[in-house]
Amino acid sequence: MTTASRTARTSERPVLTDAGADLRSRANETAVSAMLAVDPVLVDVAPVLEALPGMTPRTILTSGAPMEWREYTGGQRRAVLGAALFEGLAETLDEADRLLHAGEILVRPCHDHGCVGSVTGVTSASMPVLVVQDAASGRRGHCVLYEGSDRQRLTYGVWNATVHDRLMWIRRVLAPRLSAALRQTGGVRINPIIRRALGMGDDLHSRNTAATAVLFQQLVDPVLGANGADADTREVLAFIRQNDLFFLHVAMATGKCIADAATGIPHSSIVTAMALNEKQFALRTSGTGDRWFRAPIPELRAKLFEGLRVEDTAFMGGESLITETVGLGGLAAAAAFSLQDYSGGSAEAMMRITNEMYRITATEHPLWKIPSLGFRGVPYGIDASLVAWTGITPRIHMGAALREGGHAGAGLLIAPIEPFREADTALTA
Amino acid sequence: MTTASRTARTSERPVLTDAGADLRSRANETAVSAMLAVDPVLVDVAPVLEALPGMTPRTILTSGAPMEWREYTGGQRRAVLGAALFEGLAETLDEADRLLHAGEILVRPCHDHGCVGSVTGVTSASMPVLVVQDAASGRRGHCVLYEGSDRQRLTYGVWNATVHDRLMWIRRVLAPRLSAALRQTGGVRINPIIRRALGMGDDLHSRNTAATAVLFQQLVDPVLGANGADADTREVLAFIRQNDLFFLHVAMATGKCIADAATGIPHSSIVTAMALNEKQFALRTSGTGDRWFRAPIPELRAKLFEGLRVEDTAFMGGESLITETVGLGGLAAAAAFSLQDYSGGSAEAMMRITNEMYRITATEHPLWKIPSLGFRGVPYGIDASLVAWTGITPRIHMGAALREGGHAGAGLLIAPIEPFREADTALTA
Repeated sequence: MTTASRTARTSERPVLTDAGADLRSRANETAVSAMLAVDPVLVDVAPVLEALPGMTPRTILTSGAPMEWREYTGGQRRAVLGAALFEGLAETLDEADRLLHAGEILVRPCHDHGCVGSVTGVTSASMPVLVVQDAASGRRGHCVLYEGSDRQRLTYGVWNATVHDRLMWIRRVLAPRLSAALRQTGGVRINPIIRRALGMGDDLHSRNTAATAVLFQQLVDPVLGANGADADTREVLAFIRQNDLFFLHVAMATGKCIADAATGIPHSSIVTAMALNEKQFALRTSGTGDRWFRAPIPELRAKLFEGLRVEDTAFMGGESLITETVGLGGLAAAAAFSLQDYSGGSAEAMMRITNEMYRITATEHPLWKIPSLGFRGVPYGIDASLVAWTGITPRIHMGAALREGGHAGAGLLIAPIEPFREADTALTA
Repeated sequence: MTTASRTARTSERPVLTDAGADLRSRANETAVSAMLAVDPVLVDVAPVLEALPGMTPRTILTSGAPMEWREYTGGQRRAVLGAALFEGLAETLDEADRLLHAGEILVRPCHDHGCVGSVTGVTSASMPVLVVQDAASGRRGHCVLYEGSDRQRLTYGVWNATVHDRLMWIRRVLAPRLSAALRQTGGVRINPIIRRALGMGDDLHSRNTAATAVLFQQLVDPVLGANGADADTREVLAFIRQNDLFFLHVAMATGKCIADAATGIPHSSIVTAMALNEKQFALRTSGTGDRWFRAPIPELRAKLFEGLRVEDTAFMGGESLITETVGLGGLAAAAAFSLQDYSGGSAEAMMRITNEMYRITATEHPLWKIPSLGFRGVPYGIDASLVAWTGITPRIHMGAALREGGHAGAGLLIAPIEPFREADTALTA
């Protein structure tokens, strides 16, 4: 499907001339081809300060389109303050707050530093990040390591001694051992893992059970080869094995690596980022570069863990929807029937979700296939103009966060239409 | 569903009185409850001579209902002769053949020794077997270890130096290290692995990709803990990791452990074994004890690996259909859409297969669930009388064997109706 057919429609929005439609169509093909040409490889785990472009010791990255420091009032605020202490930039939360107000500590969006963040997305100089590199171009995408399944995580807006200690273990034990293993083997190719996991019930956003198991199969021998089998190494293996969402952060770094390949192509309406801060859903398209198109966050239709209520939850950012941006998550709902209680309610409903997503995407992925749909490729390359035209917005699988911190459940977020319309208008004008 | 409704039908076959139908219904409930009460645990890997009841150094077990030695003419014959040499019972194939004709080496059915066999199913005294034990009753089921994915395997009727060497590696390296790991941990519970794997696209017969990955996750640390991380141990881990069908033999030993719990209940028409030798499909039911009901093997509707033709294939036995006997494999087709090219042709067809299987089974498994069917439990407890009554026979997922040895592909076997009718008649008479 191309955007050319739009010219036949009447609409209050600007309408493309035939020539304009051709231009966009070709631009979108270029953008999607660039995404499909990426051969993502998990090559390393490295400190943020070394790995991320434009990073400084006094910069703290967080999820979503940027806001003024004073606008962060919930989980993102708590996590940024925690990171300031973790990095030794302040002695107390009050001092950190003052430095942040004064601009002596900078808060910046992950997406502008080759990185995506999970929930609060807080990423600071000494933290290790997964490095996913395109074997073809060398372009890289990054994401911090999964922090474990404990409710108390910086990811979910909690800062305390437990969180500090786990972040230190990740930095001192997990990261160097994974780095040594990956460097020794030359890395792990990601496309075959995603392909395999889609055939094993993962959507690669809310569910990464299979991908984590397959990655574990591939990592065990390199980890042993590079590090031996001492207690720390066995703890590293246990950590990967026990956390079914470990691969999510690999999928996110992969999504960033892929989506960035499509950025900056004039006239292209392909979505290159979708992200949440505490207050806004925002997106970027290829043809509109760094500009964020924003809207308030719609309600998350979530199934919460036993005993929790909607009033207990709050948005605190999130960029895991980079997986939807590359055809996974809600777009691949029909691959992940185990999630039916969290998305759609039945296998049939999940197939309908994916089938709708074909109407707003440029193509189908040639390798990432969905068995329940006769091995059709996942809907790939969200076209903001098709979204604006059809009124169908991306279906997003998302985790729910507890207001006071922690993982509360998961559900389906239906993206708001306005930012897609604004992007379409900006591209057409 | 019970068999009681049969009394209302007219039929050429014997018809139960109301009292007879009640008796059978209660007997089937007892049989299926006994199966459901089993809590299978993989507890050890042990030599056949130690592990299997009634085993002797001069006995060789093979798949299917028993035949005279002269009746084995294909892959089973070659594998039995190979095993005689492997055990040092003869110096040459001719000598082995003479001893087998003379009854100085005995050929016996696996099923009579607490064991099931893969394809030829050849199982001899020094080979190691997986030991699956019911935590509740202590009853055990056994199966040799998966031999690897090489075309040249005793399993597929090949005997040569390569096969010999791999069997020796399994005996000397793989088995003792797995045994040490399992003994140290107290074993691995199987129900949660099967439950998880059904949610990850396995049918646990033709596809064990997820179950193998999950078992690997659970075995790595015990294997390292019991054996260290030397080259042999790393080879053991690599073997499990690289063979997606490794878990199949665990599932088979599990099936045997479960099905044996239902044996010998008077009047029960629940199927306790289905097995192939080179020439016959055969089954047993609970109420008819050790008696085999036999029929010629129907055509396997197989998809063969690239370049192979039907004429290249041959039946050479098989008891992996113990998985269907406990509700997996073809009965759980709707869990394993990745197999659609081998079974049914589409996801919809695979759902139809499983839905039909509910018509010939006594109940649904309370733990082993199928996401595509709204987490309905797998069809469980094949009732020979329901098969005879409905004319619907079990759908079986099976590997295809190359005539000269090796794995040729996989497909769907529709069980013949006659043995079910004969069993029903025997139970009703």
